[in-house]
Amino acid sequence: MNNLLDRVQSTMLMGAGPSSVAPSTYHAMSQPTLGHMDPYFIRIMDELMAGLRVLFGTENTLTIPLSGTGSLGMEASFVNLVEQGDKVLILQNGVFGVRMVEVATRLGAQVTELAFEWGTPADIEEVEKALRQDSFKIVAVVMAETSTGVLNPVKEIGELLKEDTLYIVDAVTAIGGMPIEADRWGVDVCYAGSQKCLSCPPGASPITFSPRAVEAIKKRKTKVPNWYVDMTLLTEYMSGGKRVYHHTPPINMMYGLYQAVLNILEEGPAKVFERHVKAHKHWVEQLGSLGWTLLVDEPYRLPMLNALVVPEGVDESALRSTLLGERHIEISAGLGALAGKIVRVGLMGYNAKIESVDRVVSAMRQI
Amino acid sequence: MNNLLDRVQSTMLMGAGPSSVAPSTYHAMSQPTLGHMDPYFIRIMDELMAGLRVLFGTENTLTIPLSGTGSLGMEASFVNLVEQGDKVLILQNGVFGVRMVEVATRLGAQVTELAFEWGTPADIEEVEKALRQDSFKIVAVVMAETSTGVLNPVKEIGELLKEDTLYIVDAVTAIGGMPIEADRWGVDVCYAGSQKCLSCPPGASPITFSPRAVEAIKKRKTKVPNWYVDMTLLTEYMSGGKRVYHHTPPINMMYGLYQAVLNILEEGPAKVFERHVKAHKHWVEQLGSLGWTLLVDEPYRLPMLNALVVPEGVDESALRSTLLGERHIEISAGLGALAGKIVRVGLMGYNAKIESVDRVVSAMRQI
Repeated sequence: MNNLLDRVQSTMLMGAGPSSVAPSTYHAMSQPTLGHMDPYFIRIMDELMAGLRVLFGTENTLTIPLSGTGSLGMEASFVNLVEQGDKVLILQNGVFGVRMVEVATRLGAQVTELAFEWGTPADIEEVEKALRQDSFKIVAVVMAETSTGVLNPVKEIGELLKEDTLYIVDAVTAIGGMPIEADRWGVDVCYAGSQKCLSCPPGASPITFSPRAVEAIKKRKTKVPNWYVDMTLLTEYMSGGKRVYHHTPPINMMYGLYQAVLNILEEGPAKVFERHVKAHKHWVEQLGSLGWTLLVDEPYRLPMLNALVVPEGVDESALRSTLLGERHIEISAGLGALAGKIVRVGLMGYNAKIESVDRVVSAMRQI
Repeated sequence: MNNLLDRVQSTMLMGAGPSSVAPSTYHAMSQPTLGHMDPYFIRIMDELMAGLRVLFGTENTLTIPLSGTGSLGMEASFVNLVEQGDKVLILQNGVFGVRMVEVATRLGAQVTELAFEWGTPADIEEVEKALRQDSFKIVAVVMAETSTGVLNPVKEIGELLKEDTLYIVDAVTAIGGMPIEADRWGVDVCYAGSQKCLSCPPGASPITFSPRAVEAIKKRKTKVPNWYVDMTLLTEYMSGGKRVYHHTPPINMMYGLYQAVLNILEEGPAKVFERHVKAHKHWVEQLGSLGWTLLVDEPYRLPMLNALVVPEGVDESALRSTLLGERHIEISAGLGALAGKIVRVGLMGYNAKIESVDRVVSAMRQI
């Protein structure tokens, strides 16, 4: 083996994630590994959990980073709450909604899928109708659909739910890029990934469970089938005085996430969110001059994930290859039904800034 | 938040894992993050998978690093092979055998637990008897029991198994520290962690599936309930021409694992294993002079994990605290039934050397 790592080309990650990482976060990840029972590491984890509570907008005690990527967060949300035959309503308007259906179905849930056209948000009236027609233990939605660039009305959906319905929200692409108010919106489980607007490399999945969700887990008739993400066991390691060993978390990933969260808190979350909006507005202006249009209508557009409709006659695959190969800029392809029809440009975290937009636009113009 | 990372004390990790990390591996982990669909990252992954095949002693195509820690490897092994009611024989002589029972039971397996005294290896005659009495779809054992320091007779057990029995072996503590011959020993699924003798921080779990195991997964009546580690989906991302997106792996963790594996291949696996044995022998000699004894009899002792019986009158908890707080050396407590009775000293990867042994012994002597 030659060492391929000697020639990793620094790449501007302007796709759907992972996003570019701040130098301070790379630095954090290369700090000396500590043991997972080391009191100093426990302190780092405690502070990290406190920081995550701010970004989730929650006071939930059970707010922790899982030892895996954002997809593990989705798995953990459903596997802890779902038991055989439970009724689950999933609002689906993109790849990650489809994935929720798949994950919940595999776990034996009785899933009702309420689908909306990709590129449009969940329609509140239709959600209300579905909720009138049946009673669900769990309702789930993706806040920021990474596959389409749509923002779903998480708060409004939350207002429709009955007291005893558990509300799962995917915030993988939202966290760190826009306000999340899990407590005020009545969200019971919210999960995220480290690799989008947090600008940490992938490998950790922040997740939070409300006291109601914790109660629901305690009342299960069967044990959580997935030992690795069983929240009752993880709680014993992550909190309280005893810190019972469960599994060894990815120590240096947690350093990276700690630094990434700290970067946001130091800049100020409101300022960070504003920076995302400004970069997005600049991007939309510049796009017009390139002759490209956006898939999603303005009120539901995500600032951090822009789905661009590929104009007639443009070879999107060649464009992406050239951007990556010659300009070292990564943008993403469309997924699923939108493959070939859109490209996805991320303005996430470290790259949510005017200069980054200008660099991409200039490269696209030249190609 | 002050930045706690500014004051992470470099600690000599001489416990049961994580282990100390080579500077080259820290350096690798801070290389620029690439996208998970970037052709250059795919090349890195392909070479990493080739390196893992060498360390597992296998030609299995499906040899990949999972996006989680070693415990996820255990989960993935069972969740891919087990269906409701399947008969599983688990040979248990430590905490990680107990965990296997727990993981398999949660998945609906009909588990037979064959237990051996902790500190002794699985007894081949008893295994043979159990195999005569019943027929099992799966037999599982931990090769190097991290909780006791015992080496189990993986090869000999493999020789007893029928053609159609699937053989799962936990190699978390073994990999990179001693030879593994998965193919020659008839192992169908072997999993490991990055954080022991590979000397990479925790966060990736190498795993390999034999063609027979892959066939067994294809023949399942039900889908793998755990979407995150469904091998049929992971195979589509990790191999073949299409590289269908499944989830975003922890890119920088994979860099670290790549470098850690490369370090072993460059030094030469045989030399690395020999270094572990030499450090262990030196350690045993030095221990005698300290008046400590080992839990495990010589023929079954692991070189990389030494369980020390705590002498009468020694406060093992105070010893560990002082070593960590004053000398910045971490050793581990006993787990489960052995808590308070043993301490565990790891000679793993980067620290499997005479100088490291001498430093620990000298610190223990002074305390």
